[in-house]
Amino acid sequence: MVLAEGAKEGPAKVEEQKTENGLSMIVFSGDLDKLLAAFIIANGAAAMDTPVTMFFTFWGLNALRREERVRVKKSLVESMFGWMMPRGAKKLTLSKMNMGGMGTMMMKRVMEQKNVYSLPRLMESAKEQGVRLVVCTMSMDVMGIKGEELIDGVEFGGVASFLDAADRSKTTLFI
Amino acid sequence: MVLAEGAKEGPAKVEEQKTENGLSMIVFSGDLDKLLAAFIIANGAAAMDTPVTMFFTFWGLNALRREERVRVKKSLVESMFGWMMPRGAKKLTLSKMNMGGMGTMMMKRVMEQKNVYSLPRLMESAKEQGVRLVVCTMSMDVMGIKGEELIDGVEFGGVASFLDAADRSKTTLFI
Amino acid sequence: MVLAEGAKEGPAKVEEQKTENGLSMIVFSGDLDKLLAAFIIANGAAAMDTPVTMFFTFWGLNALRREERVRVKKSLVESMFGWMMPRGAKKLTLSKMNMGGMGTMMMKRVMEQKNVYSLPRLMESAKEQGVRLVVCTMSMDVMGIKGEELIDGVEFGGVASFLDAADRSKTTLFI
Repeated sequence: MVLAEGAKEGPAKVEEQKTENGLSMIVFSGDLDKLLAAFIIANGAAAMDTPVTMFFTFWGLNALRREERVRVKKSLVESMFGWMMPRGAKKLTLSKMNMGGMGTMMMKRVMEQKNVYSLPRLMESAKEQGVRLVVCTMSMDVMGIKGEELIDGVEFGGVASFLDAADRSKTTLFI
Repeated sequence: MVLAEGAKEGPAKVEEQKTENGLSMIVFSGDLDKLLAAFIIANGAAAMDTPVTMFFTFWGLNALRREERVRVKKSLVESMFGWMMPRGAKKLTLSKMNMGGMGTMMMKRVMEQKNVYSLPRLMESAKEQGVRLVVCTMSMDVMGIKGEELIDGVEFGGVASFLDAADRSKTTLFI
Repeated sequence: MVLAEGAKEGPAKVEEQKTENGLSMIVFSGDLDKLLAAFIIANGAAAMDTPVTMFFTFWGLNALRREERVRVKKSLVESMFGWMMPRGAKKLTLSKMNMGGMGTMMMKRVMEQKNVYSLPRLMESAKEQGVRLVVCTMSMDVMGIKGEELIDGVEFGGVASFLDAADRSKTTLFI
């Protein structure tokens, strides 16, 4: 079973940071609004020098896909998953009031007018502030998403990697 | 960026309560069932003398809107958001099995028969028990919701205000 | 009000385990993908000797229903809820891309090919590893689900039971 895979990483990282005051998040959702919330929290916490780890699983992986199509070998089912799911942060839509994309477009425009960072910019800023973006390798395997299809600067890990981050965190959220 | 805005509130509040045994929740959802869960937890924790902070963001704001229409100046887009989103706790619907309102109506009736508090009553009780209801000012800004449109007894804060509450909490949930 | 009901269980359990390094989850969702995430985390944590408590509420109860129909006395509304909601782990569907069941079927097949445990097997494994499955009695009451309709090996508790588990946990998630 894939569960055990990341177990070996645990001990090594515990030494790195044993402060237990971190913030960690499981980003399960692939909805624009939830991703915005997650990255606003991540940026806010990082600005206050809190070590932040975001663990992307299931639909959350879509936020980390490259915009452009990447040529990789896939099975038919993997290709189908790939086609049906949004490719990258710019393609995500609201969980409510999407209304065929109109709600999402409205939200993006309003955010721009009010000087709130867009999701791609929040992600860039999070990376610059040292927020760790960890991708769930089991989800990659199930959904047939390959490492080359994901944006730069992400790490890869199993459930043990998440549990290790949670263990060193004051706050852990499932989003 | 709006993120930094609440940062100044941090230090003052840390002195107030440095026990770190609180419960905090980000109420992101505007679904009746999730709000019920959130307020049942809040009331239960407050009854056991746990300091509770609920931070309302995105669709969660709808739970705090006044029932009646309030005259405030809005842009066209802000007015549209206002029309499309439910006005107050009584208008919220279930995340599943709403079935054009019938499921929600059934759920409310059953809860009444079984003597479970309704959402408005749970909210009233939470406020009486000293649960803090904090409204995300960035969400208000983006959705064009003004302070006068919200029920009495709420506070206003940015992401720093949430992070501060989380820091003083044993348990933090994203709902 | 049903809230107070579980309060008396609190003190007794605190003595059992006062380590505060547990993991607890509120399983509110009844979506296959979220249940998979919850049980993968539960199994991973249990494998690392973390005491895990899962508290099932609202739609989460559906995951614990027996597959077969159980004859119990119900009111009309309770029967209706029973008919409309999925009976057991095998009947749950994805929160996204269900596509009339096709997406869910595809996901299950891929998981099998990739040697990822199915939900029923993850649940079995969690129970074997000592993960506590606690069912929210208030949700049972509201939804008209009786104890006989649920799988073996579950416990029953109110919100106080959850708060007690959260109090003894390093990490608490709302799923």
